[in-house]
Amino acid sequence: MRSDHDLKPLFEPRNIAVIGATDVPNKIGNNVMGNVIFSGFKGEIFPVNPNFQKVYELKTYPKITDIPQEVDLAVIVIPAEHVLQVFKECAEKGVKACIIITAGFGESGEEGKKMQEEIVRIARENGIAVVGPNCMGIVNTSRDLNTLMTRNLPAKGNISMVSQSGTVGLVLMGAMADMGGGISKFVSSGNEAVLKLDDFLEYFTYDQDTKVVAAFIEGIRNGEKFLRVAKELTKRKPFIVIKAGRTSAGANAAHSHTSSIAGSAQIFNAVAKQSNIITCESTEELIDYTVAFSVGALPQGRRVGIITPGGGWGVLAADACEEYGLEVSKLSKSVIDKISEKAPPYWSHGNPVDLVATYNIELLTWSGEVLLENDAADSLIIQFFAGNLSTMIKSWKNTGKVNNQMLEAMMQRWKQFMHNIAIDTAKIVEKYKKPVFCITRDPEFTEMLVSRNVPAYVDPRRAAKCLSKMLEYKKYLDKNKL
Amino acid sequence: MRSDHDLKPLFEPRNIAVIGATDVPNKIGNNVMGNVIFSGFKGEIFPVNPNFQKVYELKTYPKITDIPQEVDLAVIVIPAEHVLQVFKECAEKGVKACIIITAGFGESGEEGKKMQEEIVRIARENGIAVVGPNCMGIVNTSRDLNTLMTRNLPAKGNISMVSQSGTVGLVLMGAMADMGGGISKFVSSGNEAVLKLDDFLEYFTYDQDTKVVAAFIEGIRNGEKFLRVAKELTKRKPFIVIKAGRTSAGANAAHSHTSSIAGSAQIFNAVAKQSNIITCESTEELIDYTVAFSVGALPQGRRVGIITPGGGWGVLAADACEEYGLEVSKLSKSVIDKISEKAPPYWSHGNPVDLVATYNIELLTWSGEVLLENDAADSLIIQFFAGNLSTMIKSWKNTGKVNNQMLEAMMQRWKQFMHNIAIDTAKIVEKYKKPVFCITRDPEFTEMLVSRNVPAYVDPRRAAKCLSKMLEYKKYLDKNKL
Repeated sequence: MRSDHDLKPLFEPRNIAVIGATDVPNKIGNNVMGNVIFSGFKGEIFPVNPNFQKVYELKTYPKITDIPQEVDLAVIVIPAEHVLQVFKECAEKGVKACIIITAGFGESGEEGKKMQEEIVRIARENGIAVVGPNCMGIVNTSRDLNTLMTRNLPAKGNISMVSQSGTVGLVLMGAMADMGGGISKFVSSGNEAVLKLDDFLEYFTYDQDTKVVAAFIEGIRNGEKFLRVAKELTKRKPFIVIKAGRTSAGANAAHSHTSSIAGSAQIFNAVAKQSNIITCESTEELIDYTVAFSVGALPQGRRVGIITPGGGWGVLAADACEEYGLEVSKLSKSVIDKISEKAPPYWSHGNPVDLVATYNIELLTWSGEVLLENDAADSLIIQFFAGNLSTMIKSWKNTGKVNNQMLEAMMQRWKQFMHNIAIDTAKIVEKYKKPVFCITRDPEFTEMLVSRNVPAYVDPRRAAKCLSKMLEYKKYLDKNKL
Repeated sequence: MRSDHDLKPLFEPRNIAVIGATDVPNKIGNNVMGNVIFSGFKGEIFPVNPNFQKVYELKTYPKITDIPQEVDLAVIVIPAEHVLQVFKECAEKGVKACIIITAGFGESGEEGKKMQEEIVRIARENGIAVVGPNCMGIVNTSRDLNTLMTRNLPAKGNISMVSQSGTVGLVLMGAMADMGGGISKFVSSGNEAVLKLDDFLEYFTYDQDTKVVAAFIEGIRNGEKFLRVAKELTKRKPFIVIKAGRTSAGANAAHSHTSSIAGSAQIFNAVAKQSNIITCESTEELIDYTVAFSVGALPQGRRVGIITPGGGWGVLAADACEEYGLEVSKLSKSVIDKISEKAPPYWSHGNPVDLVATYNIELLTWSGEVLLENDAADSLIIQFFAGNLSTMIKSWKNTGKVNNQMLEAMMQRWKQFMHNIAIDTAKIVEKYKKPVFCITRDPEFTEMLVSRNVPAYVDPRRAAKCLSKMLEYKKYLDKNKL
């Protein structure tokens, strides 16, 4: 343990008590119980609720002190006015970690603040690692642990994230999953009465199951510690942050949301630069970067091979690469000759490799492989320019003039075709360990690619942006070898 | 007619001849015929092909000169070596407009260049309006006209676009449709041997069915004329452009693609500024802006009302608004009191209107309406923070532990719910004629919204960006009243 707190009982508890557990529909205590059970948690689960004998068919205890075994982790989902008493009982019971989901503390009025101070005092005295209050719970898919207050079961993976907004965090996890990125650990940190942003970041720094760390940050409570933690983190793993409350309008909103002093964009940007944090302007950037780092290898250099079935897309990709400091490298005669063996005679004979609207879409991935196997590029952007097939089929159906059976057959052929291409593309990613980004607007093709660890975007600019961030980080790692 | 060319026979032909028409599968001549027929074109269609008596059950002529009637528009889809002869026959026949889809002219070698020059000469002598060669065709949904060479049936709408890359144009049209934007006219301009970018832009300027004009541009052949045309255009309609070939890598790629001299980003940006063109860095921006202008009214001022069920999203939206020059306006006491009538007591009591994870999602749209009806905002960003419902349901199904029937019921309830919210939101857009942008990551909810002319984005930053472009354009129109 390198943190001031021992977070092992929080992320790897042997057992869990849910205080306020219920199976009454539409109750938060039910959502938490559902998540704990259906995530497949391997340890014992103790519902605590004086009103029930059983919850989800599990023996239910009136109080936590009634549980015969030692308890590692307690999740508290009861009205605010009872939390303090129950938390004292947790201390009495010797609970090691506690997640207080209930709101109505530091964020709301004098009385709430006092109660929160009391929680902090008790936690310190008893060495309890507390998340919240006013949070949405935590996840550790590596241990099948999920205490979220809403019905979410994040996909498993190697991304760990702490979010100072539960709702932002939940949406980000879902969006990452849609892009092929899975979660190892997630924390909605809430009021951060005891455990703070940097405690979780420190834990992720040394966590074996975490490859990439992401954070949604509104306010930093201890700038010096954050800087120290971030520096240690980025030496080991990419750390991708969206800092909200950068503007005065945003800071006002943040103050009203989490009473945090957001601080100016300038200060945060200076800290980010010093500690090599990868900063984002939007949630889309955070998702793009996080997933790109999560699924792929880092590029070994700035040369990008652009493969395209249409000249216009090649020009767009070339612009994006140059604007993001990448290089659209020249191809050697031998590489050009090799591609010419299969490409139509009027192909571009250079990079971008423009196959000029060829109907042999397999040639796209094949040409990409020619570049990789001859070390003519450090990464690829392959543009499949397929629009959205469903949109197309729907527009044909709408005419009422085209045979539905024919359309169905056409769709099935295309799906099989996309499926084969996705497999081919995943193979070259696996074989050459170089970043390969695909461009397509078809949601099904996207899913076929991302589920095989091939990132896919709707525009080459987003791929170029990700590549530039990965390249910068690679250079930083090379300079700062541990 | 204000252009040097009469484009009416091109966009509103009384009849069409397709030279190279066929119903043999996987032939471009078949694709064109299919598009012409299934788009529902009301005039007569004359297939021309010496090898068939009938194509798609229509009487087929060996040569265009064999057609008894006058012909307005001929589409040429035959091998390059025969095009010149056939084009001469078109001139002989008195055809008024011609689309040459065939490639192998100015873009490919000396012989091609010579043939193209000959086409230009004949077109000038006979006053034929020619699109292409080496293009993908045109569309005019207002006249159910579609001569595209690939099987695409663009959605009807008020966006007109010219694209110097056919494949980019096709994908953009599909993407616009997915976002709720439909096409009035589309031109893939190809080699621009006769009709050029600015001819089409000039036509769109005065076209009654066009509300918004978009363009993908690689090269501008006549800078002075382009500037003049663009200035007249932007006085009447927003003109949204993605200029490819901005960098040296991009310019090289563009030269190889359309032999166009792309020119530097600086020159284009200067021209764009002078003529108030709305420029884009990516296809995503072009789609976002074009659809936002297409479906909505312009904002009357910079005050944005932000409605959110989660504080973090409110902070992100407030940052984005301020960074794009918009104002997160203060709310009056009477507006706050009005919202307090229905909102939970702990709502933010200000703008962003943070309803704090309320389960009454209807309150989001209702609160938005309170702002609009009290003139407390010139536009709204409503964040529904709904992740992707299908992703959530899928993750629950994957556990194998949750009753599928229960999940199905839950999904149906949610869909009904989203449906109702989409209807409510569309109503306030219709009633107050102010821009309302929604934020969601659920594809089905997105479709429910955009199909009702409510733009929806995955991140508030994109909404703020669109709003800022609309506001700038509004200010420009106010200063430059016609």
